[in-house]
Amino acid sequence: MNLKTVQTPALLLDLDKFTRNCNWMKEKAERLNVALRPHLKTGKCIEFARTQMTSPSGPATVSTLLEAEYFFNLGVIDLIYAVGISPGKFERAVNLREAGCDLKVILDNKEAAEQFSAYCEERKIPCPVLIEIDVDGHRSGVKPDSDDLIEIAKILQGKAYFAGVLTHAGDSYKCVGQAACLKAQENERDSLVHCANRLRKAGFEPKIISAGSTPTAVFAESWEGVTEVRCGVYCLFDLVMAGLKVCTIDQIALSLLVEVTGHQKEKGWVITDGGWMALSRDRGTAAQAVDQGYGLVCDIDGNPIDDLIVASANQEHGIITHRDGRLVDPKDFPIGTRLRILPNHACAMAAQHPQYFVVRKGKIVDIWNRIYGWQPKGVSL
Amino acid sequence: MNLKTVQTPALLLDLDKFTRNCNWMKEKAERLNVALRPHLKTGKCIEFARTQMTSPSGPATVSTLLEAEYFFNLGVIDLIYAVGISPGKFERAVNLREAGCDLKVILDNKEAAEQFSAYCEERKIPCPVLIEIDVDGHRSGVKPDSDDLIEIAKILQGKAYFAGVLTHAGDSYKCVGQAACLKAQENERDSLVHCANRLRKAGFEPKIISAGSTPTAVFAESWEGVTEVRCGVYCLFDLVMAGLKVCTIDQIALSLLVEVTGHQKEKGWVITDGGWMALSRDRGTAAQAVDQGYGLVCDIDGNPIDDLIVASANQEHGIITHRDGRLVDPKDFPIGTRLRILPNHACAMAAQHPQYFVVRKGKIVDIWNRIYGWQPKGVSL
Repeated sequence: MNLKTVQTPALLLDLDKFTRNCNWMKEKAERLNVALRPHLKTGKCIEFARTQMTSPSGPATVSTLLEAEYFFNLGVIDLIYAVGISPGKFERAVNLREAGCDLKVILDNKEAAEQFSAYCEERKIPCPVLIEIDVDGHRSGVKPDSDDLIEIAKILQGKAYFAGVLTHAGDSYKCVGQAACLKAQENERDSLVHCANRLRKAGFEPKIISAGSTPTAVFAESWEGVTEVRCGVYCLFDLVMAGLKVCTIDQIALSLLVEVTGHQKEKGWVITDGGWMALSRDRGTAAQAVDQGYGLVCDIDGNPIDDLIVASANQEHGIITHRDGRLVDPKDFPIGTRLRILPNHACAMAAQHPQYFVVRKGKIVDIWNRIYGWQPKGVSL
Repeated sequence: MNLKTVQTPALLLDLDKFTRNCNWMKEKAERLNVALRPHLKTGKCIEFARTQMTSPSGPATVSTLLEAEYFFNLGVIDLIYAVGISPGKFERAVNLREAGCDLKVILDNKEAAEQFSAYCEERKIPCPVLIEIDVDGHRSGVKPDSDDLIEIAKILQGKAYFAGVLTHAGDSYKCVGQAACLKAQENERDSLVHCANRLRKAGFEPKIISAGSTPTAVFAESWEGVTEVRCGVYCLFDLVMAGLKVCTIDQIALSLLVEVTGHQKEKGWVITDGGWMALSRDRGTAAQAVDQGYGLVCDIDGNPIDDLIVASANQEHGIITHRDGRLVDPKDFPIGTRLRILPNHACAMAAQHPQYFVVRKGKIVDIWNRIYGWQPKGVSL
């Protein structure tokens, strides 16, 4: 099996770029004297995770309890489930804890803190909880100056237990370039340290002070006062990150291999078998300076071609055009031509596929399986 | 397991609505004296398909060769793979034919016709081909008046073999209401009949004359001259179809069950565990008169709530707000509240999930598994 014979559409992972991206972040975290707790939601795959993590047992971050169960069963012990926990997930999370997983959960409100504390007490299994902080108005979390911060720590203490603070500087996804990302990172770090200090003053020692997003982690110059950094998409990068100048196009390690199935000559269209089902519906570059449509077109070796993008997509059809409206000559892309499409958002494209075809120097060297969904394995009525 | 205990996010299929939608289209096709060849790409699930189809062996339509293999192994024999075939898929398609599947493929250009004919001749396995027609400029297909139509039939004859014509009136997705959809349907039918007549005049009898899209199939008053209708999303319906007045909100049979995990009170946000990974990134209503964000919010029983929508989404977070900007009171949606989100595009939402939780009268009565991906089962290096 090679790039000319594998069935298309196929998800390709460039092993050298991926490994380089992973190692770069490991070295950077080490240099800044902070633990790296990579987010495994991008890969959802054990081989992928082992390249990201600094040890086979973690630390690592997950976005679903299914990921936590999958990775724990494969030896990853030190995990944070970094989405606010609610009652329907208490049992499943505490079961993991009971089974020996060092799972930490997060929450951002007194209601959930009271309910989770009561549940842990009932099970007699204390479970460490990080309080989620909203440093930039992005989505969930308590405000750094909120009274709730201390009150939640009080509720948790002794029953669940208070383990620290965590934030995701999601608004950094709107920052373009080093200066803007660095400003977001400094705000992220300073707000988190401020929260940690408020908690210490109130008698609660945060063991974990967890920050991180790819744009802030890439540009960070100091994480002083922070114990660990979480980030995910840095290991693959994508067009959204390239649009923020967080990476170059050449660093993007994920692509979709597609095949030309037809043309509409008078419209200058090249039609492929890579539709939105394989590319994902993500249009994250639509709001950026350069709109990449559903993805940037490369040749089979991964070299971008003369400003071609996937301008539109149906479920199993991708329509390639020139960004500037020039007509593409069908002769340049005969039926059967294979191309690679770079993703707007790597997490979203990867999620559409059961497996990665791992590519090295133009050869497929391995196949890595991904998980997906939310239900426990073997769910039944 | 019930709607209060199943792990969220969970994909719910309302069995009565789904069955009603399926039966409505079966009866309509019968009344209009046309075969129904439902598209199985919406469901990707055998139990689902059996409710759609008029017999357990088909006819049916698929969007990938993996779907063809999966359904054929479960007894569905009469299949059209309705995406233009290209060289990388010849072997796999003809293998299905060799195994006894009555698979038909489609193509829209001389290049593919020549290559596929040569391949079938080499294998000594003729494979019926439909010529794809572009009736409305939507994407692929030959123009109804093109010389290519006859030339492709000539190339196919004797080697692969010419079996008929097929179109997808995809531009009907831009038509709002009965009159506009009906006009699109009449154009679809007339263009296809025109092609069939041109082919007959040239000595090629089209055995299959295949039309169909949900908006045109719902409103069609006559399919005279057409032998079969393909459509898919009618069995579930969704907010995009409701926006086109092709269905009512009440007919939508698919939803995502989510749980409230937090609030941002001063912004009027309710945060749930249903993010874009579970909702899909589809924003198909963005260009419609009513933008439904990432989906319309219903209570646990499926009744829409007072104009609440999922205004934005992260990977595992959905942010619910009022459409008109009024603040939502957190007290109305305490932590742990379960809600259902109706999809913009049912095919896209369903694709994010390994299984349907089949619901009847508020109870989960079954779990149906879906397939996904493109690679042959058990693919290895």
